[in-house]
Amino acid sequence: MRVLGIDCGTERTGYGVIDSDGRSHVLVEAGVVRTDAREPLELRLLTIARSLREVIERHRPEAAAVEQVFHAANAKTALKLAHARGAALLTVAEAGLELGEYSPLEVKTSVVGYGRAEKSQVQMMVASLLRLAGPIESEDASDAVAVAICHATTRVVRARMEVAR
Amino acid sequence: MRVLGIDCGTERTGYGVIDSDGRSHVLVEAGVVRTDAREPLELRLLTIARSLREVIERHRPEAAAVEQVFHAANAKTALKLAHARGAALLTVAEAGLELGEYSPLEVKTSVVGYGRAEKSQVQMMVASLLRLAGPIESEDASDAVAVAICHATTRVVRARMEVAR
Repeated sequence: MRVLGIDCGTERTGYGVIDSDGRSHVLVEAGVVRTDAREPLELRLLTIARSLREVIERHRPEAAAVEQVFHAANAKTALKLAHARGAALLTVAEAGLELGEYSPLEVKTSVVGYGRAEKSQVQMMVASLLRLAGPIESEDASDAVAVAICHATTRVVRARMEVAR
Repeated sequence: MRVLGIDCGTERTGYGVIDSDGRSHVLVEAGVVRTDAREPLELRLLTIARSLREVIERHRPEAAAVEQVFHAANAKTALKLAHARGAALLTVAEAGLELGEYSPLEVKTSVVGYGRAEKSQVQMMVASLLRLAGPIESEDASDAVAVAICHATTRVVRARMEVAR
């Protein structure tokens, strides 16, 4: 299945598209949408939504996956993030994509096999799973790919469990 | 000018369209978009965005106005609100509308003339300013109209000040 992972943020929104059978994963495209901090929030949301829409049109994923939000230490940051997330989720829903949400613990466990893995370990494992020569340069893009891998793996495991019943 | 006020929320999003010269205001339409709490968040955001888009297409406002968000006592509620707000702001930006953001204090001062006015006073004054027989039934719709009135009033005062220079 083809999965779009999104790592939401008002400044930088990472995205990563993979093809996966739940065990082996192939990178289709990964990148980062950057917005201009001098622009008003609504125009930054527009940049995020339009860019994600282009990625969806270009690669036609079947599903999307995002990380769950938590009540961050910094309430102001969390609120801004939630605006970006609202715009991203709306874009996913408009495209009719199935959406999966995962905790950071689930993403790390799925990618590294260890829920308390360091950010750099996740980045290394993402590259390794995709058989890339080196880690994906942008951490946001790499994080987006990680949540896509988590979704693909989870979906295939669930489907196998249902067949086994 | 024709202004769309929006009172964002995941459960109920109020909206109100007015025609205003900054002093006298005429109600065009006010209402509430309700979403189903059993639906996943992304589908609720889709309901909000589509409904607002229909209101914009029906009445072609020149500007939109929303209340600023604050770090609510309940962080979880604030996060959900910010998702709805992200979807609403994106919809406004896509329609190319000018956007005004106002604090609750600014809205109350503009409508009631007193920043610490009670909710019921705001509702009464909104009805009075619009020369309605009684208050707008839904508080969310009435609050949306209030922020629209605030925007129209503020814009006209600003324009006059620029002319007076």
